[in-house]
Amino acid sequence: MSKYAIGIDIGGTNTVIGVVNEEGKVVEHSSLPTPKDPDVSKYIDQLSTVINSLALTLEANFDGAKVAGIGIGAPNANFYTGSIEEAPNLAFEGVVPLVALLKEKVAYDNITLTNDANAAAIGEMIYGGAKGMKNFVMITLGTGLGSGIVVNGELVYGADGFAGEIGHTTIIPDGRDCGCGHNGHLEAYCSAPGIKRTCFELLAHTNDTESELANVSFNEMTSKMVFDAAENGDKVAIEAFNETGAILGEALANTTHHLSPEAIFLFGGPTAAGDHIFKPTKEAFENSLLPMFKGKIKILKSELESGSAAIVGASALVWG
Amino acid sequence: MSKYAIGIDIGGTNTVIGVVNEEGKVVEHSSLPTPKDPDVSKYIDQLSTVINSLALTLEANFDGAKVAGIGIGAPNANFYTGSIEEAPNLAFEGVVPLVALLKEKVAYDNITLTNDANAAAIGEMIYGGAKGMKNFVMITLGTGLGSGIVVNGELVYGADGFAGEIGHTTIIPDGRDCGCGHNGHLEAYCSAPGIKRTCFELLAHTNDTESELANVSFNEMTSKMVFDAAENGDKVAIEAFNETGAILGEALANTTHHLSPEAIFLFGGPTAAGDHIFKPTKEAFENSLLPMFKGKIKILKSELESGSAAIVGASALVWG
Repeated sequence: MSKYAIGIDIGGTNTVIGVVNEEGKVVEHSSLPTPKDPDVSKYIDQLSTVINSLALTLEANFDGAKVAGIGIGAPNANFYTGSIEEAPNLAFEGVVPLVALLKEKVAYDNITLTNDANAAAIGEMIYGGAKGMKNFVMITLGTGLGSGIVVNGELVYGADGFAGEIGHTTIIPDGRDCGCGHNGHLEAYCSAPGIKRTCFELLAHTNDTESELANVSFNEMTSKMVFDAAENGDKVAIEAFNETGAILGEALANTTHHLSPEAIFLFGGPTAAGDHIFKPTKEAFENSLLPMFKGKIKILKSELESGSAAIVGASALVWG
Repeated sequence: MSKYAIGIDIGGTNTVIGVVNEEGKVVEHSSLPTPKDPDVSKYIDQLSTVINSLALTLEANFDGAKVAGIGIGAPNANFYTGSIEEAPNLAFEGVVPLVALLKEKVAYDNITLTNDANAAAIGEMIYGGAKGMKNFVMITLGTGLGSGIVVNGELVYGADGFAGEIGHTTIIPDGRDCGCGHNGHLEAYCSAPGIKRTCFELLAHTNDTESELANVSFNEMTSKMVFDAAENGDKVAIEAFNETGAILGEALANTTHHLSPEAIFLFGGPTAAGDHIFKPTKEAFENSLLPMFKGKIKILKSELESGSAAIVGASALVWG
């Protein structure tokens, strides 16, 4: 009998559901739109239908295959309560007891919910570059900056299940507006929109009309465009990555001074920029460390595949 | 048979050694000067003589009393290796394998070494206000700002034994010189010298010749004087505590966004200022938290007695 885990990634737009084997490979997958209205029960009906049908297909296709449980990654998810709480990017209102609702509709008792970055950290530990590591930090760069912290081989949930909000640590006092309503948070600088904002700050500061980024509107610009521009030698784009790395490196030193990890993994779209982002990050990181940490802590690219990482990470909760 | 632990606090000037019972009460104590020269073996001889003589006195005074082990708190101490490594405030050079050296001279095998703030955290958990807590942070305010982090009921040492250096997280980019050689670290603002520095900044800024602090030189001023001035309604002193609390509160929110603790304990001289320091700290803390943390995390004064906390905390390593 071989065991499989179902991984679910609830995003702002889509919910992706995958069946993952013990090696972290997705063998079946499906998706449905995350609702735009607060009707949770209809969504749970749809989600459980997809889960049950994927499980049936699995059992039909693989002899003796069995689903061992379900892991779910979602924004503002609380591991302890199994609820999504006051998620600003989802249409659901208040506290949604997702795990309890789902248990009523599917035949599995092993259902675990956590936030997406925590799920990615577990995924990295079980299937990725953090295999065998007991102390590491996962940083997910995307629309925001998420984080998952592993100490002594265990994910840190903290007293109330919400640990790992490094994106909302203050890095520049009275700095940029952050989506959470505060100012100067790491996420407002080191994320896909943060990189774009840095480009616009640089264009404003330098008045560099020659930059290829000077021809793109704020709403059109993507971090992929900034990466392409940097590859073409565009000064604004290169400086934007340098400034992003300088801030990220200092922030990762702050995290290191809390936790003394063995490695810090970076995951997500902006990491595709490779050395453009890793080089200044590592440089600022080393410069910001106390002597006893210098040269000891690895900053690594996540080894999870970008396309399937969210469901693979979530599925790893079943084994983690 | 009743069990006792020996707690040792190695400070820059003195080494204090105490025999502590299982309730955290010091029943015997002694001290010797921490050497001003790098001769470790002479120091180990002296230290082991004191330990052995305290143990003999204990056994003579208390029927059936037995020393269960030794816990040591020291700057730049590495829990994993049992060594003091490159401590800038001690005369010892390089790496001193303190635990190994001591084991050669005393009859105890259970000898544990960690840094002073970690020892205080264990002390708070075993004897103080953190009894029963699984996730909390200890902040020690003194010449510097030390910290000990407890996650899932265990002290966090991290990959290399040096976790808990929150005092060296950057809080004001390009800010004040820190003793470690970097700039803008929390310790340069929120510590006894940090409070004094803020007073001098405020005197420079306001030109307030009426302040009682305007009559004291930089080298003469203590945080006790600032506290007394604040009690007398001195504007500079009150504002210095307000600014210290504003920075400390924001820093503790950064720590909370990493770890989601149940409580944060403050220990050390400056906490004697009571509301002068706690009120602005709590206010800035709450203002800096993400909504899901607001109103949930307690900022508390340590319940360890200031005089004996260091040896009591160190002794708790034996049980912790």
